[in-house]
Amino acid sequence: MTRYVSAAALEAFVTKLLCALGAPKHKAELVATSLVSANLRGVDSHGVHLLPEYAKHFRNGNIRPEADGHVISESGACLLYDGEHGIGQWISYVCCQHAVRLARQYGLGMVVARNSNHFGAAAFWGQTISAHGMIAIVMCNASPSVPPWQGREGRIGTNPICVAVPSQGSGAWLLDMATTTVAMNKIRQAYANGQKTIPYGWAMDRDGVPTTSVEEAIRGWLMPLGGYKGSGLGMMVEILCAVLSGGPMATAVGGIYHLDRKMGTSQTFIAIDVQRFLPLDEFQRRMEHLIRVVKSAPVAKGYSEILVAGDPEARAEQLRRQSGIPIDEGTWDRLARLAQELGVAMLEPQMLRNGSMSC
Amino acid sequence: MTRYVSAAALEAFVTKLLCALGAPKHKAELVATSLVSANLRGVDSHGVHLLPEYAKHFRNGNIRPEADGHVISESGACLLYDGEHGIGQWISYVCCQHAVRLARQYGLGMVVARNSNHFGAAAFWGQTISAHGMIAIVMCNASPSVPPWQGREGRIGTNPICVAVPSQGSGAWLLDMATTTVAMNKIRQAYANGQKTIPYGWAMDRDGVPTTSVEEAIRGWLMPLGGYKGSGLGMMVEILCAVLSGGPMATAVGGIYHLDRKMGTSQTFIAIDVQRFLPLDEFQRRMEHLIRVVKSAPVAKGYSEILVAGDPEARAEQLRRQSGIPIDEGTWDRLARLAQELGVAMLEPQMLRNGSMSC
Repeated sequence: MTRYVSAAALEAFVTKLLCALGAPKHKAELVATSLVSANLRGVDSHGVHLLPEYAKHFRNGNIRPEADGHVISESGACLLYDGEHGIGQWISYVCCQHAVRLARQYGLGMVVARNSNHFGAAAFWGQTISAHGMIAIVMCNASPSVPPWQGREGRIGTNPICVAVPSQGSGAWLLDMATTTVAMNKIRQAYANGQKTIPYGWAMDRDGVPTTSVEEAIRGWLMPLGGYKGSGLGMMVEILCAVLSGGPMATAVGGIYHLDRKMGTSQTFIAIDVQRFLPLDEFQRRMEHLIRVVKSAPVAKGYSEILVAGDPEARAEQLRRQSGIPIDEGTWDRLARLAQELGVAMLEPQMLRNGSMSC
Repeated sequence: MTRYVSAAALEAFVTKLLCALGAPKHKAELVATSLVSANLRGVDSHGVHLLPEYAKHFRNGNIRPEADGHVISESGACLLYDGEHGIGQWISYVCCQHAVRLARQYGLGMVVARNSNHFGAAAFWGQTISAHGMIAIVMCNASPSVPPWQGREGRIGTNPICVAVPSQGSGAWLLDMATTTVAMNKIRQAYANGQKTIPYGWAMDRDGVPTTSVEEAIRGWLMPLGGYKGSGLGMMVEILCAVLSGGPMATAVGGIYHLDRKMGTSQTFIAIDVQRFLPLDEFQRRMEHLIRVVKSAPVAKGYSEILVAGDPEARAEQLRRQSGIPIDEGTWDRLARLAQELGVAMLEPQMLRNGSMSC
């Protein structure tokens, strides 16, 4: 059974859980907004289902809710930040503010954080920066789940790249992509659905050989996007985040499913002040024109339209703001258990049956 | 028959051809160095075989050898440049110098050029910037040969991304990749070799459906890297280059094989001064460590080692500096014809047979 809840109710609930876990209210609210924002955009892999995992890290001290981090150095448009293992979203929020401040002053700002934690979906931080009329480039390293091309053991994370632009409506465009072909979730989903095969390029077997067998893939490895180029992009993220930050790199990085060590994530936030190049409204008109031209291509066989980055998520958000956020049974149960442990009242199930919300 | 020539001889010859085409000597030398550098690195697609194509654009006025371009605006760390359809390599050289100057001053520098021309391999400009102790990010748009994902007509170019780091030896790493899975050349080569199939993910047929048939691919389209993510990356490059520059976008961009219009390429050069984050030697040690860890992964079945971005090219360069640059018969003949037309003495064929250079 899938339950539907409004974004506001879900945010309030998540905030209470985080406060009960020891997060100061302003940080709890920020984390809640970032997770629910992912759910709203249909990116459930980065939504509230992460909360029970976050809770484990709060409880064993891997995430230090009181830590605010500190500036290690600031030199021109470049700032290095130590997150002191604070809440990833809080560290990211502070770093985004610095990046925007620097870009206001110099046209560009680049903030590199070390000893941070999981920051939710990168898109949220891209949007945080782009709301200031700036182009955002956000990257982050992650636990070493992806083998290098021609290898067969994880060395680099799924290392996402996000680029956001200050443009809305028909000029909206928002890229947020892992540097693997697909997320592990997609393969787990295929397995759960009893599928036998997945498309070529998604995964490799234990021996590092590309496979289309779900059975092999589930025991194997995610494939870097398109092969060696994806490996290169993943490494680029590792360099721009972790080599520059001085934080843990590659196999030394922890992760949300690794409780034995602190995550030690590195994150990089770049802000580019569009108006240093052209007026913001001209930039937006040019974005609209570019997207119109791209969408004017005849549609490939088997498809009904051309989408650009961010389109599917924007549509999901429109829908979910109206009809609520679906929470699958497993996530619901885990959240209920956590709420009980923490003495927080469980969400009222704002049930949806056949597409209409009960309240 | 493949002829081998030394890099020095090839550079001198190319310089003469370009001077005869009307390029001032300092610009001719720069173009020669950039093209021969690609050949040295084994990237023959961006080497001297381009010269007869460049010549057509010089002759019909699409490339204006005398134009130096001018700064449109400079604001903080951001600079906008108009290339005035000058020689792409010259415009890029000037822009790289500006990017490095700005990054010295502010820690970061971003130069966006419009109305430029083909600049050879992006890697050359990445290296130009990284030689100053800086991380370089270089991008460029191109003629619309790639359909958007789910489309079946070209809208965006192969839009390459290059990232170079100031590190050498065992810490060397240099990414230069088109945002398609492979270059069109690879498909042409498969066709020329009489191959019947190519790997899934390389190309789409005329209808925009992924195909493994060489026959279908040659009449079809290049596939964006890994599907929709490659489309997103291509669009990212178009935004950071052409939307920001104010130059031609998407289908308005010309190209080396389009003589009916000026190329109007946009290029973006970003320099990041490493020392604003950590000392350069520490950065280099961390690069060495990262690469060592990545290469420590067990090797996948069917391979003998793990390579990182730039390794194959560095090996090619080592080899070709010793034994010369191979020029295939077709390229040799086209260069000879051009030399004759321009009254330039043809290269002495420094022939190689069985691996040893004749002179």
